[in-house]
Amino acid sequence: MTGAEASYDVHEIPDLTLECGATLRPARIAYQTHGTLNADRSNAVLYPTWYSGRHWDNEWLLGPGMALDPDRWFVIVPNMLGNGLSSSPSNTPPPYDRARFPRISVRDNVAAQHRLLTEVFGIETLPLVLGWSMGAGQTYQWAVSHPEMVQRMLPFCGSSRTSPHNRVFLEGVRAALTADGAFRGGWYPDDAWPITGLRAAARVYAGWGFSQAFYRDETWRELGHTSLEDFLIGFWEGFFLDGRDPNNLLTMLDTWWHGDVGTTPGFASTEAALGSIRARAIVMPAQKDLYFPPEDEEWAVGHIPGAELRVIPGTWGHFAGGGDNPVDTAFIDAAVRELLDQPPAA
Amino acid sequence: MTGAEASYDVHEIPDLTLECGATLRPARIAYQTHGTLNADRSNAVLYPTWYSGRHWDNEWLLGPGMALDPDRWFVIVPNMLGNGLSSSPSNTPPPYDRARFPRISVRDNVAAQHRLLTEVFGIETLPLVLGWSMGAGQTYQWAVSHPEMVQRMLPFCGSSRTSPHNRVFLEGVRAALTADGAFRGGWYPDDAWPITGLRAAARVYAGWGFSQAFYRDETWRELGHTSLEDFLIGFWEGFFLDGRDPNNLLTMLDTWWHGDVGTTPGFASTEAALGSIRARAIVMPAQKDLYFPPEDEEWAVGHIPGAELRVIPGTWGHFAGGGDNPVDTAFIDAAVRELLDQPPAA
Repeated sequence: MTGAEASYDVHEIPDLTLECGATLRPARIAYQTHGTLNADRSNAVLYPTWYSGRHWDNEWLLGPGMALDPDRWFVIVPNMLGNGLSSSPSNTPPPYDRARFPRISVRDNVAAQHRLLTEVFGIETLPLVLGWSMGAGQTYQWAVSHPEMVQRMLPFCGSSRTSPHNRVFLEGVRAALTADGAFRGGWYPDDAWPITGLRAAARVYAGWGFSQAFYRDETWRELGHTSLEDFLIGFWEGFFLDGRDPNNLLTMLDTWWHGDVGTTPGFASTEAALGSIRARAIVMPAQKDLYFPPEDEEWAVGHIPGAELRVIPGTWGHFAGGGDNPVDTAFIDAAVRELLDQPPAA
Repeated sequence: MTGAEASYDVHEIPDLTLECGATLRPARIAYQTHGTLNADRSNAVLYPTWYSGRHWDNEWLLGPGMALDPDRWFVIVPNMLGNGLSSSPSNTPPPYDRARFPRISVRDNVAAQHRLLTEVFGIETLPLVLGWSMGAGQTYQWAVSHPEMVQRMLPFCGSSRTSPHNRVFLEGVRAALTADGAFRGGWYPDDAWPITGLRAAARVYAGWGFSQAFYRDETWRELGHTSLEDFLIGFWEGFFLDGRDPNNLLTMLDTWWHGDVGTTPGFASTEAALGSIRARAIVMPAQKDLYFPPEDEEWAVGHIPGAELRVIPGTWGHFAGGGDNPVDTAFIDAAVRELLDQPPAA
C-alpha cells in the first residue's frame, strides 16, 4: 500500500539534545521503508523529505523498473522534524508544544536519522542519499557529517547553504503567514487556525514555486487546473490548507533558513565543508528554479571533488523536482540510475 | 527646488469617466514639470510614475548634462492615479473614497494625462515618452493610444501587458497586505493602519525587487545598509511605511494587474496593438528582473516595427531602473540620449 493510508513506523529516541540546547524527551522520527535490507546491509538508500512533505510525497521516484527499484534497494524515507509526523509543534506535549517547539537545524535532522539508521537497522553504509529541496539540504549535510557512510549523493533543487535571496523569499512567506492576527504568536486554538495567513503564504509561495515561463505557457493545465485563479486556489491554497499546521511550517522554515554545511563543527567555511565530501555526486538544480538558481549549485559543485553539475532543463522551476512532471521525473530517474551504476569513489 | 518639498501643480478634470464606468467628479492629476515648453510646443517629454512612486522619484534621470536636460526638454512627470497625489483612495471624498475608490486602468491614466497635456499645454507632439515599471506600461499604452503624438518611446523594466507570473507575484503582495485583520476590508481608521500587513507586503516584495545575485553579493551595502535584516527593515519596510496608504497601494496594484495594450478598443490582440506602434522604440528590460524578465520584452519587441531590445546588464534586477545604481543610470541615460538623437520615424 502507498500514500497517506500506508502504514509507517516511528523510531523513538528517548532524548535528543538539539543544537539549540533544548532536548526533546522523546524525539520521534516517523519513517517508511520500501524494499528489503539485504544481509550485509549494503543496499540502503536514504531519501529525506522536503518542506512540509511527508514520506508518501517521495513515492513518485520509487517503483519497479525505476532506478530506485524496491526489489533491489532498501529505501528509507525519514520525515523531517516539524513536518507533523515526526516530532513537531503540532504533536509534542507541553512544555515544548506549539510555539514553544524548539529550533531545529538540518544537522538535528541528520543526527536523528543517523540514530534511526544505526539503532534500528545497523546500517553503516549508504550507497545513496538523495532528496528534493530541503531534502537536498539534508543530503549535503549527510555527506559532510558522515563521509564514511555516504557513497553517493544526488541533491536536486536544493543547496548546501541557504542563500541570502532564498532567505528573503522565506521572510515573505513567514511575514504573510504571521500577518494574520489569528496566528496569535503561534497560540491559535485548534479550531481557529490563521486560515487567511495560510492562504496568503500560499499565494506568496506560488510565484516562487514555478517559473515565469510555466505561468506564461499555462503549464498548470497539465496539472488539471482550469484557470490561473483555479491553480492559485486549487493547487496552492489547497496545498497549504492540507493539514499543514502553521507552527510546523514555521519550524521547518526556520530549519531551512539556517541551513549551511559550513556551520558544521570543525569546518571554517562552507567551501571547506563541501571540499570534505567524499561521496560521488551528481548535483541537479532546475534551470528556472527561482530560489535555488543553478548558479548557486554551480558554485557548490566547484568545491566538491569530482562532482558533476547536471541541470534539469525546462520551465517547471523548483517543482521540476516535485514529481508532477513526467519529463522531469524521467530525467532525474535516469541520473539516479547512472549514479548508482558508478563506483562509490569519485 | 527638487524632492518632496518642491511645488507641483494639479490639473483638475471636472469629470473623468473611467473604463470601469465610475466617474470621478473631479479627477485631479498632480504633476511637475522641468524646463520650459518651447514656442512651437515641440520639446515635451512625458515621464509617468511607477508603482507608488511620486513625481520626485523620477528626478534621478533628469538634470543638466544628462539626456533629459531641462535646458532643452520640457519634461512633464504626471503622478499616477492612486499614488496619493493624484486622485486616490486616500484623498477622494465620499462616496468614492477609500475602499470604494473605483478601479483605475492604465488607459484611464493615459486619458487623464492626455487631457493634461492638451488642455493645459496644447501639446500635440511628444518627442519621447518613457518610464520605469508601471511607467513603462503607461509608455506602451501612450504609443498605442496616441501614435500620432508619440515619436519615441523608451519603456524600461516594464511590459506592454502584465504577464501571468507577474500577476501571481502581485497576488502575493496583495494577500500579505490584506491578511492583517487591521486592514478591515479597506476601512481601517486613519490612526490604525494595517502596519503588520504593510510590513509583510514589504518583505514579500523584497525578494522580487532585486536579483538573487544582488542579495548573494550583498550589493545592498552600496545603499548604505549594514546587514540583510537592516536592508529588509530600513529599505523595504521603510519604503512601504513611508506614507503609502494601503488602499492606494491596492488601487495601483489593480491597475498594474490588468495592464494590457491588447485590450485597447479596436485591437484584437496584444500583438496587434504592439504592431500598430509607430514610435521609434528602445525597449530596456533588466537582465535579472524577476517579474519583468527580458524574454517577455524580447517577445514584445518582436511585434513592434523597428524596435530595439537593449537589455540593462547587471544584478540589480527590477531596481536597475530605480535610479539607485549609478552604473544603470548611466546606461539608461545613454540610451535616452541615443534615442532622442534619432529621427522620430523608425
